[in-house]
Parts: sequence; structure tokens; C-alpha cells
Amino acid sequence: MPGQVYNRMAVVGFGLIGSSLARIAREKGVVGEIVAVDASEAHRARIAELGLADRVTGDIAGGVAGCDLVVFATPVLAIGEAMAAAAPALSPGATVTDVGSVKGTVADAMAATAPGDVFVIPGHPIAGTEHSGPDAGFAELFDGRWVILTPDAGREDAAYAEAVAKLSTFWRACGAQVELMDVQHHDLVLAITSHLPHLIAYNIVGTASDLEGVTEGEVMKYSAGGFRDFTRIAASDPTMWRDIFVANKDAVLEVLGRFTEDLQALSRAIRWGEADKLQDLFTRTRAIRRGVIALGQESAEPNFGRDRGKH
Amino acid sequence: MPGQVYNRMAVVGFGLIGSSLARIAREKGVVGEIVAVDASEAHRARIAELGLADRVTGDIAGGVAGCDLVVFATPVLAIGEAMAAAAPALSPGATVTDVGSVKGTVADAMAATAPGDVFVIPGHPIAGTEHSGPDAGFAELFDGRWVILTPDAGREDAAYAEAVAKLSTFWRACGAQVELMDVQHHDLVLAITSHLPHLIAYNIVGTASDLEGVTEGEVMKYSAGGFRDFTRIAASDPTMWRDIFVANKDAVLEVLGRFTEDLQALSRAIRWGEADKLQDLFTRTRAIRRGVIALGQESAEPNFGRDRGKH
Repeated sequence: MPGQVYNRMAVVGFGLIGSSLARIAREKGVVGEIVAVDASEAHRARIAELGLADRVTGDIAGGVAGCDLVVFATPVLAIGEAMAAAAPALSPGATVTDVGSVKGTVADAMAATAPGDVFVIPGHPIAGTEHSGPDAGFAELFDGRWVILTPDAGREDAAYAEAVAKLSTFWRACGAQVELMDVQHHDLVLAITSHLPHLIAYNIVGTASDLEGVTEGEVMKYSAGGFRDFTRIAASDPTMWRDIFVANKDAVLEVLGRFTEDLQALSRAIRWGEADKLQDLFTRTRAIRRGVIALGQESAEPNFGRDRGKH
Repeated sequence: MPGQVYNRMAVVGFGLIGSSLARIAREKGVVGEIVAVDASEAHRARIAELGLADRVTGDIAGGVAGCDLVVFATPVLAIGEAMAAAAPALSPGATVTDVGSVKGTVADAMAATAPGDVFVIPGHPIAGTEHSGPDAGFAELFDGRWVILTPDAGREDAAYAEAVAKLSTFWRACGAQVELMDVQHHDLVLAITSHLPHLIAYNIVGTASDLEGVTEGEVMKYSAGGFRDFTRIAASDPTMWRDIFVANKDAVLEVLGRFTEDLQALSRAIRWGEADKLQDLFTRTRAIRRGVIALGQESAEPNFGRDRGKH
């Protein structure tokens, strides 16, 4: 048990991820004190009501002052501005990280105004739900999930390496597994494992609701044949996802191009009745799910356990 | 409570759907006797072991003889052949239905060899999991789900209408809701709500596992950001799904064309940084999920309830 890792943590942007982090950090005693910073008055009132932080404020500079850990948990395009507001107030030696789903542009945005005497370590916990806001968070969100840290490749000093090790200890104490990765590689891996899945889920839900000859009501009513699965991630926070596609444009367009190419080949196989090609792919994809389950990243129950209690 | 609706039911193809139907029909006392017909010796042994039927056979004609309800629950391209094998043995006045996900080609295939003195009523319960075989079935599978019947538009006689009403009573007694629908319309509705979702899930899992620069291990490990959702339906039975795409080619290619068109527009919006267009779509799609949940077709819990017990 690591005990307390940081004295005072500020979480800037106290939504699903930020509030989950505060919940688990307090539950495990990983930080001494928690400061919640949120731009929304409604969120701040709710955070206070739920008692999720020791202090709640809308002022970034005031919130981060005196903290040895600052976590930016806003939509990714807002992180640069948040860092600029925080910069003058950051304590020397503080660790500054984030939880954004894109790392290249975010690392650049943070670096632009970060003081030289803090440790900027971009990060990304691969965890979430389709819900948003401080009420949606829960302490177990990171349990068994991976957190990818993308340390600054230009910093080879021992103090920075120590700060990275300490942040890793912090995340492990919150239940996560930690991996270090190159920034560009992170953005490609996430483009295929997270950004493209969201894009095509949003897209199919849009296509379905616009389709001539089939009503929206029918689409909803008969969704248990597969469509309903896609509605979950297509219900994710619109601002958060808008920012991700803008911020990770290049990698997203690259994997989208590959996806489209493969889909055209599949379309051609259907048109020409190439049943063997279809069956080959459909057989191959089964193994991937088994792998995901074996790695503890998915429920082994049928239908994600939706029918639990039913049988 | 309807009590017993049919005296003897034969289920031809005793997998996930067939065995679930047998389980619930017996539990609710909706049929007097159940005959399981399955081509697989391993399945037959397992059905006998589990005690899921009163009689188990590999012989279609022998199995359907003396039944007043025959349900074909094989992959869709096998239904025509099964009907041809059953035809000489069918009792006059028997109702013959199926559970296939495509209705146009299946209705034609059944009509080709069906005797004139039986009632052929194509059907489709919109329910399932990614698992297959007699062990995967469970009695509650159809609970609250929709069953679409596509009665023969050419038959306007009272006896046929009565047979349709009786089959509807049967399905309701098994926990389902019943809707009558035109064959062509069914195939278009299912193309968008079930077949296209499966096709793009299979496709993205294929793309991900082939992507240069990202290993299969990474794809699995970091799948909690969205990708793992797609692996569920991409783990569905390969033969079943190969048949569906071959049998519903026209409707699938039509909705796939629309999906691709929309995806290209979305790709363009990302390339040109049209953030408002992205946010508009992402906001619109949220409402569809709320509708699916309101109609009782989906769990309202975050992450499909996967994290249940976690919080």
C-alpha cells in the first residue's frame, strides 16, 4: 500500500473522469487534500453538495496554488487555456498532468505556457462511460483499466523520471495499470481503439435516424438486433468528442481511410456473393473478443451482462 | 394466461434461439410436447443431457411428423432445404414458421416446397446474444423483445388469419411483443437496425487487427475506450451472419451506401475542422439512445451495466 502520494491535488474540470479520480484518491488516501476547479456554477454547487472535494472554486490560478499535483480533466481543446491560466500560480516542482484522449496536440498546448520548474507529464486513463458530469463519476472507474503516460522525450533528467515514477504510483494506487508510451504512438493506438469506434457509432446512429422509409420509432423499437450497442457510445459527451476529432485529425483520418477501404472490400464481397470471404473475416474477429476478455478489459457474460438476473 | 397453445412443437436447428424458445415454451406450458431436430450429433447429445426436449432427432421428416407447430431455427440459407425435407411429413393444418433475420428470400424458399394445406408464417424474434449453441440459450431471452411476423400477403382466408393470431398468442406467451409487417419493409428495417451494425462491427475489428503500427495485443489491451463494444457483435456466429448478408444483399447494400455517404461527409468535416457540424451530429444522436431505453430495449445503466457491483 503506497499511502499518501501527493499532499494536495487540484482537479481542473470535475466531470466523469475528474470526479471519479477525486473519489478514488480520497477513498484510498492517495492525496492529502483535494481542490475541485470547475467553470460551471451548477457543477460547483453539486460538487459541494456531494462533498467530493475539500475546496471548490471556479478560479484556476487560485485552485492550483500550493498543489503538488494538478490534473487537467477538461475537454482536450480547453487544456491549453487552462494551463495558461494556471501557469503563474503553479508551485515549483509540481507535477502537471491531464486525462485527455489525445496526447500530441495536448502536450504541445501544455508545453506552450508551462513554467520550466514544473513536471508536465501528459496522461490518459482509458476508462469512462457514456455519462458526464460530477454525478456520473464513481470510485471504481479505473479499476483494472490502463493509464497511458506519455512523458516528454526531451527531458532526461532524474528529477523528471522520478516525477513520472511518482505519478505512476499514484495511478496504480487508484486501481489502474500504467504504461509509458510515445506520444505519436498513443494517438494512433487511440485512433483505432477509441476515436474511430466513436466516429462510426455516431455515424450509424445518424444514418439510421435519417433513413427514408424507416421511422426513428422503428429504429429504436427494433434495436436489440445490434443497433442499440452503438447508441451507447453515440450518447457520449458531444463537446468532448468534437474536441477529440479536431485534436487528433491526422491519426483519425488515417485509420478511417483503412476502415473505409476494408468496408468497400466487404461491400464488394456481399455484392458478388463471395460467402467464403465473409465467413473468413467473421471467424477471425471472434478471437479478438476472446483476447479482450482474457486481458480483463471486458465482461465475459453474454450481451455485456445486460441480461444478468434474467438467467 | 393462455395455457397450452400448440400440442406438439418441433424446433429444427436447436441453437441459441431454438433452445431458448424450447426452454420458455416448456416453462410456460405453451406447448404440450417438444421435438428437437438438429443436424449436429454433438448438439443432439447435449440437448438430451440438458433434457431440453421430449424427443431429439437428426431426421427432419421424422421430427416434424405429427406437430402442429414447426419452427425453423437454422441459419437462413439452410431453411429452404429444411422445408423441402420436412414438407412430405407435415401435418395438414400445421403452422410452419422460422426465426431468421431475413424474411424475403426465406419466405420464398419456404413457399417453394411447402404443401398447400399448411400455414407458412415467416417470423423473426429480435433477440440474441453473441453466443451460439444449445448451451447458450435461456428462457428469458425473448422477454420484452419484439417478434416480427410477416404473413403471406397473398393469403386472405380466415383460417390463415386465425393461424397468425394463434402464432402471435404463442410468442406473447413466451414473453415477447408481436408486430405484423410487410416482408420487404422488415428486410429494410433489419438491414439498418441489425445487419449493418454487425457488418461494421466485423469490419472495424478486422481493420484494427490488420493495422500496421499497432499490434493486436495493443488493440485488445486498450479496448476499453470504445473498441471492446464492437468485439461483442463481431463475435457472433460466422455462418449465421454469412447467410444473412447473402440473403439480404439488396437492403444491406442500400443502407451501407447511405452509411458510407454520411461517413464521407463526417470525414470531410474532420479534415476541414468543421467543429460545429461534428457537435451537431453528436448532440442529435444522444436522443436516440434515450428513446431506445424508454422503449425498454436497453439497460439505462452506464456501460450496459458492465460495472454493476463496481459502484
